[in-house]
Amino acid sequence: MNGMKKKIALIVFSNDMDKAMAAFILATGAASAGMEVSMYFTFWGLSLLRKKKIHCKGKTLIERMFGWMLPEGPDGAVLSKMNLFGLGTAMMKRVMRKKKMLQLSDLINIAQSLDVKIIACSTSMEMMGIKQEELLDTINVGGVATYLAEASETDINLFI
Amino acid sequence: MNGMKKKIALIVFSNDMDKAMAAFILATGAASAGMEVSMYFTFWGLSLLRKKKIHCKGKTLIERMFGWMLPEGPDGAVLSKMNLFGLGTAMMKRVMRKKKMLQLSDLINIAQSLDVKIIACSTSMEMMGIKQEELLDTINVGGVATYLAEASETDINLFI
Amino acid sequence: MNGMKKKIALIVFSNDMDKAMAAFILATGAASAGMEVSMYFTFWGLSLLRKKKIHCKGKTLIERMFGWMLPEGPDGAVLSKMNLFGLGTAMMKRVMRKKKMLQLSDLINIAQSLDVKIIACSTSMEMMGIKQEELLDTINVGGVATYLAEASETDINLFI
Repeated sequence: MNGMKKKIALIVFSNDMDKAMAAFILATGAASAGMEVSMYFTFWGLSLLRKKKIHCKGKTLIERMFGWMLPEGPDGAVLSKMNLFGLGTAMMKRVMRKKKMLQLSDLINIAQSLDVKIIACSTSMEMMGIKQEELLDTINVGGVATYLAEASETDINLFI
Repeated sequence: MNGMKKKIALIVFSNDMDKAMAAFILATGAASAGMEVSMYFTFWGLSLLRKKKIHCKGKTLIERMFGWMLPEGPDGAVLSKMNLFGLGTAMMKRVMRKKKMLQLSDLINIAQSLDVKIIACSTSMEMMGIKQEELLDTINVGGVATYLAEASETDINLFI
Repeated sequence: MNGMKKKIALIVFSNDMDKAMAAFILATGAASAGMEVSMYFTFWGLSLLRKKKIHCKGKTLIERMFGWMLPEGPDGAVLSKMNLFGLGTAMMKRVMRKKKMLQLSDLINIAQSLDVKIIACSTSMEMMGIKQEELLDTINVGGVATYLAEASETDINLFI
């Protein structure tokens, strides 16, 4: 393995703010250190890639309902614990701003500018009725085979 | 590593329907692609392997209580988010049926027919008072040493 | 890889009793089997390393609030499911005592005596306003770069 670039592949299953931050801190840290990074967004994690107020036509009622209930992008993400009806999440965001730490949306922008490969899981998109136009422009769509082919060649694999 | 079969080892800790589906989609996808797959079911994940209405005798009161409270197999699994007292889970299952997507119980059957190795964690079985007769017939029982020996030789390791 | 020690790196993100036990059962099992083990405690996981009743001065109000709300060490950890306002966790601990199984605090002691490397995530410490004096004496502090450098050389990587 000498001389080759190290690789990391992350499955982002969760859309909790804290877990998403952990994923993007790892991804941007790895990309800055010269590693090749790919992130696979599946199930709830997909909602982190949603644009705001973009809704496709031709959806069934249940698909529209998923659309209303899922957060739109990183700003809708809340803590997995101590959310306290939004208070805990707001407190944490305030602390991070005061300490000049990066917010989740900043980390996503940085990841994109560092060429982190962002892949949306096609099965999850179908299950939740999410179309590619509703997601960030720079993403790719892929299935489980795409993930397995890449992940089996990486040095670090995590399910977040 | 050329010429050798790729391997993947999954720890299934959760019994949430969504996480269990992610685990079995990865497992069946990998097995179909010719990879060697082993899945280690531990803690709550064990309940995914339970047969319905099989209860062993000679259990303590607390063990019987765990038995009542834990879901019996995949049909009792619910979403980790947006379950909404069962409504969200029912909606998701309906969407999947309409789109002719495989349900969790189908995926478990396919995994077994593709020779995915299914291992129940012996420590968790003891902790929850679950006996082997209560679990699917095709499983093996193993401890942390079994897992570590195999996982340290695989290409992909995930904790789900 | 023949002849070299196998390595495992665990990210402990959660402070749930069940997930923390899974992490320490893997860590102590691996260390007993002669593997090199490192555990990175981040976000909620940090609270597992807190000493009881040690509070540093010079904290902001919000940092003191995090201090009050986060559990102090392993004894404050509760189950991720079926906690039932503490009843489920108490039941599980009672079962474990009766079966002479190790408790979480025992596992942490054993991990330390087996030279498991315990690293507290510096970013999470800053975010939650936790100082090193509040954490176990034997730990190291490290950032994402520390983790990535080590994890990319290990045989098993998990995010718990």
